[in-house]
Amino acid sequence: MKEKLYVAIDLGGTKIYTVLGNGEGSILAEEIFATKAHDGPQAVLEQLVLSVSALLAKTSYGLNDLQAAGICAAGFFDWQKRLLVHSPNLSGWNNVPLELELTARLGLPVLAENDANAAALGEARLGAGAGSGDLIFVTVSTGIGAGLILGGHIYRGTAGFAGEFGHMVVKSDGYLCGCGRRGCLETVASGTAIARAASTAMQMGRETLLTQLAEENEGKLGAPQVFAAAELGDVLAGEILADASYYLGLGLVNLVNLLNPEIIVVGGGVANAGDKFLQPLREAIADKAIPPAAASCTLRAAKLGMAAGVIGMLCRLAEQN
Amino acid sequence: MKEKLYVAIDLGGTKIYTVLGNGEGSILAEEIFATKAHDGPQAVLEQLVLSVSALLAKTSYGLNDLQAAGICAAGFFDWQKRLLVHSPNLSGWNNVPLELELTARLGLPVLAENDANAAALGEARLGAGAGSGDLIFVTVSTGIGAGLILGGHIYRGTAGFAGEFGHMVVKSDGYLCGCGRRGCLETVASGTAIARAASTAMQMGRETLLTQLAEENEGKLGAPQVFAAAELGDVLAGEILADASYYLGLGLVNLVNLLNPEIIVVGGGVANAGDKFLQPLREAIADKAIPPAAASCTLRAAKLGMAAGVIGMLCRLAEQN
Repeated sequence: MKEKLYVAIDLGGTKIYTVLGNGEGSILAEEIFATKAHDGPQAVLEQLVLSVSALLAKTSYGLNDLQAAGICAAGFFDWQKRLLVHSPNLSGWNNVPLELELTARLGLPVLAENDANAAALGEARLGAGAGSGDLIFVTVSTGIGAGLILGGHIYRGTAGFAGEFGHMVVKSDGYLCGCGRRGCLETVASGTAIARAASTAMQMGRETLLTQLAEENEGKLGAPQVFAAAELGDVLAGEILADASYYLGLGLVNLVNLLNPEIIVVGGGVANAGDKFLQPLREAIADKAIPPAAASCTLRAAKLGMAAGVIGMLCRLAEQN
Repeated sequence: MKEKLYVAIDLGGTKIYTVLGNGEGSILAEEIFATKAHDGPQAVLEQLVLSVSALLAKTSYGLNDLQAAGICAAGFFDWQKRLLVHSPNLSGWNNVPLELELTARLGLPVLAENDANAAALGEARLGAGAGSGDLIFVTVSTGIGAGLILGGHIYRGTAGFAGEFGHMVVKSDGYLCGCGRRGCLETVASGTAIARAASTAMQMGRETLLTQLAEENEGKLGAPQVFAAAELGDVLAGEILADASYYLGLGLVNLVNLLNPEIIVVGGGVANAGDKFLQPLREAIADKAIPPAAASCTLRAAKLGMAAGVIGMLCRLAEQN
């Protein structure tokens, strides 16, 4: 029997990552384009088609050899109406029928999915949570999001909008969030929040290695500089990360108490800081969650990196087709 | 074909509510006993058997006419080991194999379930959320709990401990909770929290109708007095309820953002205060949740009252048998 082949695309605000893969979730070839995020849906849809052509040109396969295509992107997918309602990273994408548009252009069946959901499925099937039934994938980078695998399947909620973990309020008197509330997890524990806390403290004259690290980075200060400074023993950077980690821990404890997951997988740029960042989160769960729920939960670093979304889409396509 | 009959028991800290019912969830006869909650598991297990005998004695049926029995109780059920790990309302109940113990005594197959899960299923099948797939049942009384119906089924998590909504932190600098954290929803929005806020304010000399209402209630002040005073226009009582409602609203918005439920059903003693209590919660969801998730969510008062748990167990038994 001929191997079933698929293309899977991760449409991000900065890059389009396109792979050729099989039903076992193995990546056979890949292509990366820089996203024309400011040029609107038509330009990006053209890029998606070109990325598939460029990918296939690297191989001995053509569109006719493919069973189906999958695409994941950040944003709100309306699961009933099959629309990408809104994407925070792509200008002008409102209520785009992404599956229909791509099907028309590629001549293939297309499945679309929220990127955190796709990454969660990838990690649950072939990554850090392989074999688990109830898994929460938490991504901590510029923003904070989550994908829920409950009972072995992606849980999307009634209309497709589940997983907005970044907008869980954990500090009721905190900063105003883009969503209109105060103290959402994203305002205290995201990469953006870590960078803001560092800038604020430096403006108040705190002595820190961050001044030098920012100078070396063309005056720009981001979460990577804060992690680097903490690694060098900088007190301020350590305090800022402890604060972010405290609130992320609170949010995770809330998740454990509410959903009693078997596994929490933490991914995203901030999570790349490794065990130093993850260990306090494990301790928060052990110390503060309902004891039997804490005892049945394991927290792990993500394993699939930037490929989690496309691997998740390959798994979804194989399970569906 | 003969109608299938079941007994369902709601084992509470103050009363044991036992019903005879059919596969459609209809209650044909009922019995109420006062729980000997301080006498330990053996005494209560005997009571459960007696309650079934007393119930059947009211009817023309015997144990032989029953297909199975169901029981729900507050507490942590270990779903894999089939144990009631701990119950907050029953002294000495630790790691009790409730299904086995009752099967041995009744000679019937027995299913046991957390009471909020059972009530959620009852409301989802035959109550305020009849026909819905993704429903969250929130109970607000002495404490705060939740039962989750996701994709049409009870969601228990990996080991059975999901639904601890009362221990979601909503006020990071709040009161210390029994669980060891600060500012859990239960510390600011439960019946206990409402009564405590009232007592504290009165001790600080605030002028209020509550003084008189407490005197009329043998000096005792509970949530019912606060609701009654607010109804009479008392400013302090109104402030206390607005505060509780604000934090409960925050917790519900977190639920909506995370799980995108179709329906939230609010039950429990405090919810009996009716629309005056529920309307601000609806407004919180509309104002503060992610707009598409808010738009797809309806909040309703529970419909089945104290029968929700046993009706849920009747539905579970019918679906299983």
